[in-house]
Amino acid sequence: MTTTIKVIKIGGKLIEDEEKLSVFLDDFAALEQPKILVHGGGNKATEIAGKLGYETKMVEGRRITDENSMAVITMVYGGLLNKNIVAKLQKRNINSIGMCGADGKSIVSKKRPVKEINYGLVGDIEKINTEFIWELLQQGIVPVFSAISYSETGELLNTNADSVASEIAVALSSKMVTELNYCFEKKGVLANIADDDSVIPEIDKNKYSELLEQKIINEGMLPKLHNCFQALEKGVEIVRLGDMSLLKPDSVHTKIVK
Amino acid sequence: MTTTIKVIKIGGKLIEDEEKLSVFLDDFAALEQPKILVHGGGNKATEIAGKLGYETKMVEGRRITDENSMAVITMVYGGLLNKNIVAKLQKRNINSIGMCGADGKSIVSKKRPVKEINYGLVGDIEKINTEFIWELLQQGIVPVFSAISYSETGELLNTNADSVASEIAVALSSKMVTELNYCFEKKGVLANIADDDSVIPEIDKNKYSELLEQKIINEGMLPKLHNCFQALEKGVEIVRLGDMSLLKPDSVHTKIVK
Repeated sequence: MTTTIKVIKIGGKLIEDEEKLSVFLDDFAALEQPKILVHGGGNKATEIAGKLGYETKMVEGRRITDENSMAVITMVYGGLLNKNIVAKLQKRNINSIGMCGADGKSIVSKKRPVKEINYGLVGDIEKINTEFIWELLQQGIVPVFSAISYSETGELLNTNADSVASEIAVALSSKMVTELNYCFEKKGVLANIADDDSVIPEIDKNKYSELLEQKIINEGMLPKLHNCFQALEKGVEIVRLGDMSLLKPDSVHTKIVK
Repeated sequence: MTTTIKVIKIGGKLIEDEEKLSVFLDDFAALEQPKILVHGGGNKATEIAGKLGYETKMVEGRRITDENSMAVITMVYGGLLNKNIVAKLQKRNINSIGMCGADGKSIVSKKRPVKEINYGLVGDIEKINTEFIWELLQQGIVPVFSAISYSETGELLNTNADSVASEIAVALSSKMVTELNYCFEKKGVLANIADDDSVIPEIDKNKYSELLEQKIINEGMLPKLHNCFQALEKGVEIVRLGDMSLLKPDSVHTKIVK
């Protein structure tokens, strides 16, 4: 055991590519414990929903989660992807447990109130069961969370996987130094969106203000960076953003610090 | 905590009827801990497979599990049904975790060898991770298992839910007095298959031999009863067979003893 907890979120595109996932899980397996994996799986859910004849409704790029969508998400995130990742980790001698927020009441959320848009069965996280997750980590177990939370009204709710990862990291930072890792399509935050190799190695608050003023950061990254700084404010030590090579010792990535 | 572990297996027909399931889970929630729930979900899997355009192949009443079938089983048993049961139990203040055999390497199996029939991705249980399950029970957690096991080759395998329940019960009987409960469509073992009220209240080995000689037990019950006696031989104290009212204090059912 190291003295740092690593929380790692992997995006849908990585998880659905068998070959890439296999390489990524090798890297994940090689990390020292304690560690936690968080995943979504939106593309696969959309594919299965389509095959089942369910329409996927999006408003402003966000999924509207009706009952059919939630059933598909529970099948795909909570079952298919989650259990296959756990099996692949066991194969790599990593003793893991696949969970959603209802398991051990680990991620408790509240259904998003209906304002201009009714997102349906979507939850905003209210509480992480830190003691339960901590207990598992102490036992040498690696928790693998799908992006589904549980509301006290007894419902399973679709929840943003980035938020699941950051809320878990924030909660655990009360126990140990915590590092939050986002694996996505890019190598990190880019100085030039057209140049994949223009990765900014480190961003602190001052640098962030500068970049914002110079309008260097592209719009898609803004909410992600906002989340990163929020996690840092709430106790997370480091946030790292990178592509699927993020977990390799010599990876190129962006490090976000206070 | 009582001094008896109750392992309860529920059949597919019960699990897929929202109203019946709700009543059953009320009864399950009312039982003293420690307790474990085991479920399958074959009908729902067949339904979803059909909608996805996958053919369900059966040979001699048994499902042939190809890759597509296994994906559906992982979605339906491991995700949809399992996570919804966990959410419903949390609503009833029962702190549960939904798992398959890969989680915590709790149910390790071996792929069934190909003889006359190739059953595909079907596993026969070799080992239960007793210490892991025992640890969860000690923490006051109720494990909910879907009928999926894990093979050391890294695969998820479809596994008979009755066997999952009995193997878990046998394993835990080394720790504490263990009671195995099978909830199915009938009120118990019937003396007359045409009369649902002809429940035989208790069957021991002698009575079993008698019933076999008199050819009173219908064919469908034979493998089930054989399993029950095997579980008793291996350490389980009592096996109870009944319908969805089995967990009610005054239920009519069949008790199987050594």
